[in-house]
Amino acid sequence: MKIGVIGAGAVGGYYGALLVKCGFDVHFLLRSDFEHVRDNGLLIESKNGDFILESVNVYSHFEDMPECDIIIVALKTTQNKLLSSILPKTMKKNAIVIALQNGLNIEKDLSEIVPSAAIIGGLCFLCSNKAGPGHIRHLDYGSIRLGQYHENYQAAGITRELQRISDVFTRASIPIHLAENLGKARWEKLVWNMGFNGPTVILNATTDLIMKNKSSRAMITEIMLEVTHGARVCGHDLDDQFVEIMLNATSQMIDYLPSMKLDHDAGRPMEVDSIYWRPIQEAANNGFDMQKSKIIACQLDFLNRFSE
Amino acid sequence: MKIGVIGAGAVGGYYGALLVKCGFDVHFLLRSDFEHVRDNGLLIESKNGDFILESVNVYSHFEDMPECDIIIVALKTTQNKLLSSILPKTMKKNAIVIALQNGLNIEKDLSEIVPSAAIIGGLCFLCSNKAGPGHIRHLDYGSIRLGQYHENYQAAGITRELQRISDVFTRASIPIHLAENLGKARWEKLVWNMGFNGPTVILNATTDLIMKNKSSRAMITEIMLEVTHGARVCGHDLDDQFVEIMLNATSQMIDYLPSMKLDHDAGRPMEVDSIYWRPIQEAANNGFDMQKSKIIACQLDFLNRFSE
Repeated sequence: MKIGVIGAGAVGGYYGALLVKCGFDVHFLLRSDFEHVRDNGLLIESKNGDFILESVNVYSHFEDMPECDIIIVALKTTQNKLLSSILPKTMKKNAIVIALQNGLNIEKDLSEIVPSAAIIGGLCFLCSNKAGPGHIRHLDYGSIRLGQYHENYQAAGITRELQRISDVFTRASIPIHLAENLGKARWEKLVWNMGFNGPTVILNATTDLIMKNKSSRAMITEIMLEVTHGARVCGHDLDDQFVEIMLNATSQMIDYLPSMKLDHDAGRPMEVDSIYWRPIQEAANNGFDMQKSKIIACQLDFLNRFSE
Repeated sequence: MKIGVIGAGAVGGYYGALLVKCGFDVHFLLRSDFEHVRDNGLLIESKNGDFILESVNVYSHFEDMPECDIIIVALKTTQNKLLSSILPKTMKKNAIVIALQNGLNIEKDLSEIVPSAAIIGGLCFLCSNKAGPGHIRHLDYGSIRLGQYHENYQAAGITRELQRISDVFTRASIPIHLAENLGKARWEKLVWNMGFNGPTVILNATTDLIMKNKSSRAMITEIMLEVTHGARVCGHDLDDQFVEIMLNATSQMIDYLPSMKLDHDAGRPMEVDSIYWRPIQEAANNGFDMQKSKIIACQLDFLNRFSE
């Protein structure tokens, strides 16, 4: 069984390395870090123990990759336009595609590119970042919530493919939770992501500082409540108490910079479209105007364009 | 006739100097710049011609000031708590108090401090800043829109006091427009102020850059439309076309940093309460939730607290 990993940054590099470490046959598609990783392998600094993989299968062109049984998509969504070329050429006919990405309608897009594939969405609860080429720093957490995609995000339940992928990841010591309803799981993740990702960039602050200040905490709460309302108009049974749960969980977390903040600080484009505009649009299609989120999204679009 | 000027920054320093220059008997209450201005006078750099007033009447304690016939309040609203001590001691019994300040309910507060006084609100259309102690740099514009306060902002029309103050300012070559309805005039000013003041701080950008970027322009437009709606629920006949007029006017303006941006850059507290929270509260009292403005106000409160 071959596993392909598209993108080996903070997410793909970390999980891919864990899969290699426990003996799976993993093939990484890289761009900027290709030569470095080919020559030096992958270095994972982790709170669970550091390790080096001296030799890993890496490719700079997808045409050179073997066809895989499982493809893990771990690009930033801002690069997803590449997938329509990459995916059909790198997967076996009945492959399973796993999207470890943020935002909404990710799997729907994938299903249009590879309609025959089983598609699974994975929501990572992971604090990691890329410290340098081929060098991943895993700070904390690491579980993934997996859910199977079914047409238009109808709840798919716990499928055989989901079980299979869960087994693979679990063998690599990756904590897995299964979601019966991927659409709902994505909205649940959005409650946190829309609440914190944008504001940490706009206010140039950690989650900790945002939680400690009365005004920013009030703002985050308002945004999160708007997202739960958005989820409900889109048919997902998410109640306002979930916001309190998320806020309490965040208070317990280590001081944290979300992926969008790390992207912006590193000069990478932010995932404003998948994390903000898609849910805003989805809610609008169902008659709800996410006014607060729109303000945040417009600010992020501006900062995406004009950053210092 | 004695004119008192409370605060001699970009607004009070500029207009007060014009009044001195044309021969009025003006008395300035200063704090940090007192000694400098006492020893060196006021320097006005202006696009209408630079001038120096070598000797001006300045005071560092309001108890030392003569009682005035006209008092111009030109403090930042963040310092308004000082007025309940200052005003009763510096004005003659039938004095006119003019508030050259931003935001809402300014005159209402003043009327509680000095119930017997005639109170006039002045909305300045002025680009100026303080370049140093006693040194005002006037960049452009300079007109004032004056309106008389009447209980609970009922339209007061063009009163005798308004005419009198208009004559005084006009003699000093200050362009004056009169407003029959001060409450409406304040909301009209808020359309621009709430649209631009916060966003220039949050996005660290000039009005010009904000107007040129599609996302930020869309955001400003949304906020301004929310403010016109707020004005309407508060009883002021302000239609959405006014937003287009404001945006077009801004496109014609010189590249500009609003007062809030200048305050924040100089490490001074921003007038979030008077420019944002008061109108938000007023609209809420009338059943309208200004969701977009609240996001901006929360962000500003955060930045007021944690600035670099």
